[in-house]
Amino acid sequence: MNLTINTDRLAGRLAELAEIGKIGRTGVCRLALSEEYKEGMDLVRKWMDEAGLKTRFDNFGNLIGRLEGKNPDEPAVMLGSHIDSQPSGGRYDGTIGVLGALEAVQTMMENGIQPEVPVEVISFCDEEGHRFGVGLFGSRGILGALEPGELERADEDGVTRREALIGFGADPEKLQESEYDTGKIASYIEMHIEQGPNLEEQDEPIGIVSGIAGPRWLGVTLTGISGHAGTVPMPMRQDPVTGAAEIITAFNSIVQTEAGAPTVGTVGDIKVSPGGRSIIPEKVEFTIDLRDSDLTRRDEYEQQLREAVKDISEKHGLDYEISDDGGTTPKEASREIMTIMSEESETMNLAPPVLMSGAFHDASHMADACDMGMIFVRSKDGISHHPDEYSTDEDIAIGTELLYKTMLRLVGSV
Amino acid sequence: MNLTINTDRLAGRLAELAEIGKIGRTGVCRLALSEEYKEGMDLVRKWMDEAGLKTRFDNFGNLIGRLEGKNPDEPAVMLGSHIDSQPSGGRYDGTIGVLGALEAVQTMMENGIQPEVPVEVISFCDEEGHRFGVGLFGSRGILGALEPGELERADEDGVTRREALIGFGADPEKLQESEYDTGKIASYIEMHIEQGPNLEEQDEPIGIVSGIAGPRWLGVTLTGISGHAGTVPMPMRQDPVTGAAEIITAFNSIVQTEAGAPTVGTVGDIKVSPGGRSIIPEKVEFTIDLRDSDLTRRDEYEQQLREAVKDISEKHGLDYEISDDGGTTPKEASREIMTIMSEESETMNLAPPVLMSGAFHDASHMADACDMGMIFVRSKDGISHHPDEYSTDEDIAIGTELLYKTMLRLVGSV
Repeated sequence: MNLTINTDRLAGRLAELAEIGKIGRTGVCRLALSEEYKEGMDLVRKWMDEAGLKTRFDNFGNLIGRLEGKNPDEPAVMLGSHIDSQPSGGRYDGTIGVLGALEAVQTMMENGIQPEVPVEVISFCDEEGHRFGVGLFGSRGILGALEPGELERADEDGVTRREALIGFGADPEKLQESEYDTGKIASYIEMHIEQGPNLEEQDEPIGIVSGIAGPRWLGVTLTGISGHAGTVPMPMRQDPVTGAAEIITAFNSIVQTEAGAPTVGTVGDIKVSPGGRSIIPEKVEFTIDLRDSDLTRRDEYEQQLREAVKDISEKHGLDYEISDDGGTTPKEASREIMTIMSEESETMNLAPPVLMSGAFHDASHMADACDMGMIFVRSKDGISHHPDEYSTDEDIAIGTELLYKTMLRLVGSV
Repeated sequence: MNLTINTDRLAGRLAELAEIGKIGRTGVCRLALSEEYKEGMDLVRKWMDEAGLKTRFDNFGNLIGRLEGKNPDEPAVMLGSHIDSQPSGGRYDGTIGVLGALEAVQTMMENGIQPEVPVEVISFCDEEGHRFGVGLFGSRGILGALEPGELERADEDGVTRREALIGFGADPEKLQESEYDTGKIASYIEMHIEQGPNLEEQDEPIGIVSGIAGPRWLGVTLTGISGHAGTVPMPMRQDPVTGAAEIITAFNSIVQTEAGAPTVGTVGDIKVSPGGRSIIPEKVEFTIDLRDSDLTRRDEYEQQLREAVKDISEKHGLDYEISDDGGTTPKEASREIMTIMSEESETMNLAPPVLMSGAFHDASHMADACDMGMIFVRSKDGISHHPDEYSTDEDIAIGTELLYKTMLRLVGSV
């Protein structure tokens, strides 16, 4: 495929950045605000500077490179992602969105195009959330959406986020100065690896994201009557494990009611008490993660699950409790941006599938403040957050080309 | 009911022994070979001495009180149980079998009956197995059935069983001296609380035990493919939790194939890895405890379970492993002793239900060496190993009367 962007430069930068915090042959450990993070951010800033962007670190630990538009007071088109990683992460998650954005803007500049509106490339701080237990920090930060006490959260060495920000060179006393006023961002486009197997299954290099699924988190606790595994006859048992097994099976059916729908449901953990081989358990607790891009359907399935918990608990003589562990509403991508992406894909002789994102991204919160669009790049075996994470340079280049073309439309330059 | 035994003496001794190691209002903590155990054993020995038995502690930490028969070289009739308890146990588990046996023999002596054969009352050491992790120590000991290394097992303070035996006054170098030669025990009768709800359900004070169920222990490990709870579509998942849920449900059905059968099946513990709310698990491990008095049926159900594990794993694309974690064969009570118990019950205007014991007892191992019989006494709510464990003095007295009458038949005195 004949691409406008500089594919070698993009691939070279990806490889160079992957050396920072490298673990093993292909892994990366670049925790938010760590030394490796600082080194990586400095390198990206250097590249932004070389490209001619006006760069700055803000007080949330974000890196921003700005290209002025012909109309500097117009809301900006923002492109980006993050370069922090999970402790045993890969080299593509986040980084392709930052380096792809820089490549897109740099290509535009090299082609002598000055955008009508400002363009910003952003590398958000602490998307992953591993170090302090809560992520999407930088994107929530610039939108004024942090929760009270977030600066006091400590990592496992007892270092608070406040201290880590100061160590990075940010000033946590002046966070407000780094927030964006309402209306100052027109749109946010993020390219990201899919982290799922759909594109690989469909043999497509890239996909257009229709929205980000909102997870619904519940905790189910079933309480029965413990007893000796040898002495309580089956018909007299009130065994929460048998109840849990039936509920999990029912939940698995509920989320698959509609064939082809993107709904997913996961029981990620189960705890049994007291948990002895020869003891009928007294209590079982398990987690529920239910995601859908369609909030109405998600609510309906949650209701069906609640009924299953009730009915199955009653059948087995169990007490039950369902805790509301939060969640978020699904976020929709801008239909206008999706249309632009589709049209530009056609000019590249591509017909990218339209996908839901099951995972969060910085785009999740950006969607609350502006038009949001995402491009997914095929992930080998759907793996992420692992050194085996892999996308080809070719697929990343194709995604970046679409990012470039989409940006040109949004900045009013085509 | 007009009883031969001295019900007040029996109830008084039970109450007095319950003061030793007492916790809370009704609980008992009398771990094997502890100070409280020693104190309790000394008190029982004093009562045996007062009754006129020839008493001794053996090198396994057992207490034995012997009454010579007219034919002192004949195999003995042995009656007993244990007085050690779980850390938060009750006052009836074991103790009623020891004090009931003493009451039965003492009544016989007071009635001027000299048995044809010797009678021994035994209080076995460490039936519960909590302190050193393996129980039925004294009964296995006298039969020469200990495993290598058992003396080196340490409690949570690092005290080995060898050291604890020495502290108790036993000589672990001379265990063999305390073993019984083959054929020296004719029969062993144990009265015990039911530890289950059957007698209470049937409104019967006592039951006749038909056998002791043999548990079959297995461990099932299912391995699938981990992934992000948001990004892997349901049809592409290889989720071991959904497989485990279906297997547990299937197991629950298998063990209830035959209505009214005593088969029981328990999944006492489940471990999920990595165990995060938003991660499709990679691995699930769970325990299987399958018990039956009928070995053929137990084997058949085990086979059905293995097939279910195989089929359900294949359906979900999971690897499976079934570990053989041991078990024991069911032990049958002597049909002759059961008949005697039935006949003697009739003279008391009772028709005790015939029950399987789902739990182990010292009788489990004694059944390998001699005729074995057990009497169960009704347990309130089926509770044991807990301060709430409760049997009425009346029910215990009725059980002891049957123990007395059964013993008279076995010693050839009626």
